[in-house]
Amino acid sequence: MTTAPPRFELAHLAHAELLTPDLEGSLWFFTELLGMRETARHQDSVYLRCYEDPYHHSLKLTAADHAGPGTLGWRTTSADALERRAAALDAAGLGRGWTTGDIGVGRTFAFDTPDGHAMELVWDVEKYVAPPELRSPILTRRSRRPLQGLPPRRMDHVNLMASDVTAQKELLEQTLGFETRERVIDAAGGGTEIGAWMSVNNLGHEMAVMLDQTGSRGRLHHLAFWYGVPQHNTDAAELCREYGIQIEAGPDVHGITQGAFLYVFEPGGNRIELFGNSGILQFEPDHETVTWDLGDFDTALAIGGATLPVETYFVYGTPVNAGQEKLVRSVPSR
Amino acid sequence: MTTAPPRFELAHLAHAELLTPDLEGSLWFFTELLGMRETARHQDSVYLRCYEDPYHHSLKLTAADHAGPGTLGWRTTSADALERRAAALDAAGLGRGWTTGDIGVGRTFAFDTPDGHAMELVWDVEKYVAPPELRSPILTRRSRRPLQGLPPRRMDHVNLMASDVTAQKELLEQTLGFETRERVIDAAGGGTEIGAWMSVNNLGHEMAVMLDQTGSRGRLHHLAFWYGVPQHNTDAAELCREYGIQIEAGPDVHGITQGAFLYVFEPGGNRIELFGNSGILQFEPDHETVTWDLGDFDTALAIGGATLPVETYFVYGTPVNAGQEKLVRSVPSR
Amino acid sequence: MTTAPPRFELAHLAHAELLTPDLEGSLWFFTELLGMRETARHQDSVYLRCYEDPYHHSLKLTAADHAGPGTLGWRTTSADALERRAAALDAAGLGRGWTTGDIGVGRTFAFDTPDGHAMELVWDVEKYVAPPELRSPILTRRSRRPLQGLPPRRMDHVNLMASDVTAQKELLEQTLGFETRERVIDAAGGGTEIGAWMSVNNLGHEMAVMLDQTGSRGRLHHLAFWYGVPQHNTDAAELCREYGIQIEAGPDVHGITQGAFLYVFEPGGNRIELFGNSGILQFEPDHETVTWDLGDFDTALAIGGATLPVETYFVYGTPVNAGQEKLVRSVPSR
Amino acid sequence: MTTAPPRFELAHLAHAELLTPDLEGSLWFFTELLGMRETARHQDSVYLRCYEDPYHHSLKLTAADHAGPGTLGWRTTSADALERRAAALDAAGLGRGWTTGDIGVGRTFAFDTPDGHAMELVWDVEKYVAPPELRSPILTRRSRRPLQGLPPRRMDHVNLMASDVTAQKELLEQTLGFETRERVIDAAGGGTEIGAWMSVNNLGHEMAVMLDQTGSRGRLHHLAFWYGVPQHNTDAAELCREYGIQIEAGPDVHGITQGAFLYVFEPGGNRIELFGNSGILQFEPDHETVTWDLGDFDTALAIGGATLPVETYFVYGTPVNAGQEKLVRSVPSR
Repeated sequence: MTTAPPRFELAHLAHAELLTPDLEGSLWFFTELLGMRETARHQDSVYLRCYEDPYHHSLKLTAADHAGPGTLGWRTTSADALERRAAALDAAGLGRGWTTGDIGVGRTFAFDTPDGHAMELVWDVEKYVAPPELRSPILTRRSRRPLQGLPPRRMDHVNLMASDVTAQKELLEQTLGFETRERVIDAAGGGTEIGAWMSVNNLGHEMAVMLDQTGSRGRLHHLAFWYGVPQHNTDAAELCREYGIQIEAGPDVHGITQGAFLYVFEPGGNRIELFGNSGILQFEPDHETVTWDLGDFDTALAIGGATLPVETYFVYGTPVNAGQEKLVRSVPSR
Repeated sequence: MTTAPPRFELAHLAHAELLTPDLEGSLWFFTELLGMRETARHQDSVYLRCYEDPYHHSLKLTAADHAGPGTLGWRTTSADALERRAAALDAAGLGRGWTTGDIGVGRTFAFDTPDGHAMELVWDVEKYVAPPELRSPILTRRSRRPLQGLPPRRMDHVNLMASDVTAQKELLEQTLGFETRERVIDAAGGGTEIGAWMSVNNLGHEMAVMLDQTGSRGRLHHLAFWYGVPQHNTDAAELCREYGIQIEAGPDVHGITQGAFLYVFEPGGNRIELFGNSGILQFEPDHETVTWDLGDFDTALAIGGATLPVETYFVYGTPVNAGQEKLVRSVPSR
Repeated sequence: MTTAPPRFELAHLAHAELLTPDLEGSLWFFTELLGMRETARHQDSVYLRCYEDPYHHSLKLTAADHAGPGTLGWRTTSADALERRAAALDAAGLGRGWTTGDIGVGRTFAFDTPDGHAMELVWDVEKYVAPPELRSPILTRRSRRPLQGLPPRRMDHVNLMASDVTAQKELLEQTLGFETRERVIDAAGGGTEIGAWMSVNNLGHEMAVMLDQTGSRGRLHHLAFWYGVPQHNTDAAELCREYGIQIEAGPDVHGITQGAFLYVFEPGGNRIELFGNSGILQFEPDHETVTWDLGDFDTALAIGGATLPVETYFVYGTPVNAGQEKLVRSVPSR
Repeated sequence: MTTAPPRFELAHLAHAELLTPDLEGSLWFFTELLGMRETARHQDSVYLRCYEDPYHHSLKLTAADHAGPGTLGWRTTSADALERRAAALDAAGLGRGWTTGDIGVGRTFAFDTPDGHAMELVWDVEKYVAPPELRSPILTRRSRRPLQGLPPRRMDHVNLMASDVTAQKELLEQTLGFETRERVIDAAGGGTEIGAWMSVNNLGHEMAVMLDQTGSRGRLHHLAFWYGVPQHNTDAAELCREYGIQIEAGPDVHGITQGAFLYVFEPGGNRIELFGNSGILQFEPDHETVTWDLGDFDTALAIGGATLPVETYFVYGTPVNAGQEKLVRSVPSR
C-alpha cells in the first residue's frame, strides 16, 4: 500500500555540522572572512551563527581528522510532527533513536539517509536573543550586521552527493515530505537520475542530492549560506581571491533553481556555496517536478558563461576520496 | 470556544484585479514600462502576467470610473482546504458564495474582509504554458524574460488600508490561517494597531493591513510586483522619472519586512510597489510576532534616508477620497 | 585682456584634511565602519587611506575644537604645471606661498579660494607601496581590500559651500583650468548661480560649489568616497542605521552628475558622501556646461524619490554655524 | 633622437564600425536586445547610438561578406591637436590621408596601425541633440533610456588582436600619446608582450592590444559597451541565454583593468563585451605601467571563477580565420 507523502511536517534546515581537519583555518574563514559570530565552544566544536539565523547556532564546526558533514538538523513544524516523522523513519528502518541534543538544541531524533548521511529532527531549539550590544534597530534581525568580513544573512541549504539519487530522493519524499522541485536525468543513458533538488518550504531547494560519480556514499557536496543580494557574491569572490581561498566556480546563476552561486573551498576542504539571491521561490501547492535532461545541461548548470570544472565539481566531495587531496587547497592569507 | 488558527490551508496570492479610470494609461504602464504580457482580453478587462507568474494571469485590469481594488484571489493548498476555508468564512458571516470563476480561474468562493475588501479563494486554476516562441531554456521559468521595459518576475503581495486594523487582522488569522509576522502599535496612544504584516507562507508578508488615517473603508494601499534584485528598483525609478510616472518614495528598504521598496502611481491612480529583494524570509514554524512601536517608526519605515510623504503615504489609497485627486498624477511620456 | 583657461594642468584631488572635535569618534567611523587604514599619526593628526588610493594618504583627520575642512590638496599633471599654476594664483592674489609639505606630501603651493577655503597644489607625492601582508594579487590595487567594515575604494570629490558661487567658480576656471560641467541657476530669481559642478578630468565632478544659504563663507558641504558599486551604498546605509551614524539622505541618484549618493554625518559632524557609481563620465573635449534651472530641481536633486532635507541639506555645513549644533548627532553604537 | 610622447592630444574613442555578414541579425542584437537606437541608414550601413553617447552615432554597422572591424574613430582634444597628430602619423609612415568624413562626422585623418587596423582621427563631429520625444529630464543624458532591451549607456573601448603587440603599442604611444596602463608579459618565454591595455584618458583602458596567437594581422578581439552597473551584466547574460546569443565567458571581473566583463558573439560573429563597471579609473599623471606575468595570469583573467575558453578567447577574432567558422554561432531566437 502506498500512502500519500506527508505535507507540512518539516519546517526548514535548522543546523548543520561540518568536520574539519583544520579547525583554526576553518574558523578564520567563517568568522574573519564571512563574519559569522561564535556563540559557544565545547570540546572540539565551535558553534557559529549568521546574523539573521533564528537559533543559537546554524553551523557547528568540529575538529576531526578529515573534512566532511557531521549531523544535519531539520526542524519540524510542530512537536507532534516530530513524533510522526520519527515513527515514519523507524518504520523505514532508518531511525537511530532519540538523543539528548546539543548546546541550544533539545531532544532530537537521529537517522541516516539511505546513502548514509547523518541527520536529525528537532522541535525544541533555543531561539537566539542578542545581548544588548549586538541588538539591531531592525527588529526582524536577530542580531546586527557585523562589521567584520562579508557576512551572509543565514544558512540556506545543503547539497549531498549520493551513490543512488533515486533511492535517497524517494525515501526523503515518503518519510519526511520533501517535494522534488527539479531533477536532472540522463535520458540517453536510460533515464538515470543525476540530481534532485528538494524542498519542504517555498525555497526552490533546501536539500539537493547529486550523483557521486566516484560511487562513494554519504559525502557532502556543499553547504550554502545566503546573501540574498547578487552583488555580494561578486564581493565574496574578490575577497576569496585576495585572501587565499580557492574559488571553484562562479559567481553565476544556475538554470536549476535559478540560484546565484559562488563555490569556494573553506580551509578544511569542505565546499561552501555562497548564495547571492533567493533563487526561484515556489508557491504552487501542486507544483510538478521540472525535469532537465543532460541535453539541457549547459543552461541547467549556468545561465551565464561559467563552467563547472569537471575535475572537481562532479567528483570532489567530503570526506575526500583517496587521490583527491591535491585538487583543493585554500591557504588563508591573513 | 476558541480554536487554534488553521495552518497550511492557503498557499499564496494567485491573482489580483485593479480598477482603473484610464485603462489605456494603465496598460501602457504595465505592458510597456513593466513589460508584462497580455494573455486575454474580455469586455472591459485585460489579463496580464509577469514572466514567472505560474498561472494564466496574475493581474486583471478592469476599466472603471474610479481606481481601486477589484477582487483578490488566494489559492488554497488543496481542494479540501478550499471547502474548509469556505465553511469557516461562512461561519464568520463573511462568505458571499461560490462563483463560476473567470478566464483561467475555476470555481471560487467569494468573501469580503471585515473592512470590505473583495476576495476569493480558489483551487482550480489554469497553469500557464508558454507558446513555443515564449518558452525559456530556463525550465523553471514559465515564459522567457521579455525584452520590453523592466519586467518584474511575479506578483508579490498586497497592502490594504483598513479602518480597523485589529479586526481585519484577527479575522484573517482565525479563518484563513494568516500569521502576523510584524505589527506596529501606537504605545503612547493606547496601543492601537497601526499596521500588520501577514503571511501564509515563507514570505515576510503576502498581505499587509495598514490603518487608513482618513477613516475610509476597503481601500487599497498598494499591489506589489517582485524583481528580487535590488538594482532593478533603481532602474525602475530611473525609467519612471524619464517616462512621466510619479514616484512617491524609494528606492529604499523598509525596516518592517526588510522589503526593498519603490512606490509609484500607475496612470490609473493605484499605488504600485516594485519589490527589489525578497525581504526577510521566515522559516520558524513558531515565529512570534515582532512588534514595532511608533517610537521605532523611523527605522520601521526606512533603513536608509527615505521619507514616506505624509501628504500621501498614510492617507492616499484607492478608491481616491474626495479632495485627494490632485495628489497623484502620472502622465506617461511615451 | 582675457586669456583662454588653462587645460590639462591639474590631475586630481590628491588629499583632503578634515577637522574634528571628536577624533576618536571620527576615527571609529573611518576605520571601523569604512575600513580605511591608518598610515601615519603625528601630533593631533591621523593619516588614512582607502585601499585603492594611490598615495600615502587621502584623508588627514585632525583634532580641533570644531568640525570643518582643513587643506585640500590637488595634484598637478607635471612639475612645470605646478609652477605655472602657482604663478597664476599669485597673479590672482590668492597665493599664500610655498610650504614644505607634510607626511607623504612634498613641497606645496598654498592658496585660498575666493570664498576662503584652504587649498594647495602639489607635484611631489609619496606613492603608496603596500607591505607584503597587505599586497593584493590584483596588481592595479595598491593594497588589498580590507575585511573590516564596508571599505570605499578611493576618495572621490569634494563639495564646498560658498557665499558667492559665481566668483568661486570663475576663479577656479581661470587659474586652475576647472571645467564647469553642470550648474544650477535660479532663472526666476535673476539667474543667480546656486551651484556649479566642476572637474579637471573625466569625472563628472571632482569639486562642487553650492550656495551657502546662510551666507557663511569657506564651509565644507561634504567630502566623498567612492564605492563604484550601487549596492554598496545600500549596504552602507544599513550599517549606518545599525551603528548609530545619522543618515541625511539616500541612497538615491542625483540628476546632477548622475551620482549615486548617500549622505551621512561622521561623528565629528562633517557630512560625508558615499558614492555608489562613477556618475556620468565626461569625455567630450568641448563639452558645454549643462544648465539646470530651479524649475528642474526635483530631478536635479534625485532621480528616485529621495528628498534632501531643507533643514540641513542647504544650510548645514562645517564649521557649524551657531544654532545648527543640534541638527546633527552621530553617536557610534560600537 | 627620441622625443617625449605627446600628452593630452586624443580625447576618446568616438565611433567604431563593424562589418557583418548578417546585417539583419546584427541589427536585431544591437537594437532589440541592446536597445540601441538607429540614427541614420545609408547604402549598406546603419548608424546606431547608445542613449548617453555624445555624438550622432557610436556604432556603424556595415553589411559585408565577412565580420570584422571597419574604421575606428578617435576624437582629438582640439582642432590643432588633430593637425599635429596627423603630421606625426605621416612622419611615422602610417597616414592614409584626409577624408571628407561620414554622416555626423567631419573631415578625418585616416591611418593604419602597424598591424593593419584601420583608424581615423577627427575633431569635427555632430553632437547629438534628441528630438523632443526622446529628451530626458536628466539633462546630462543625451536621450532618454530606451524601454527596449537592456540598453548600455555608451560605447566604451576596443580590443584589437595583433601579430606583434610591442610594435603596435609603441607606435600608438609615440604618435598618439596613448599610455600603457597594464601589460602582460611571458617572462618564462623571453619577455614577449602578450597584451597591453592603453588609454588617453582616465579610463583604465580605451584600447587593448592582445597577441593574436594564430599569427593573423589586423583582427578585432572585441568592441565594448558600457553599463556601469554590475547587475546589468548578469541581466544581459540572462537575456543572451534566453534569446540565442552565444556567451563566451562572464559575467566576472578581470584582474587586468578590474573590468566587469561579459563576452558574447553578436549574430554577425563579432565578439562584443558588455562592461558592467567602470573598471579601475586612473588619475595619477605619472602612473607607471603595471606588468603582469603569465604566472599571475589566473587572477589577471578573472577575479572570480570564470575561465576564458582557450578554444576561442585567445584565437578567435574577426575577420574569422579559415577553420574557425564553427566556433561561434549566435542565432537570435526572436
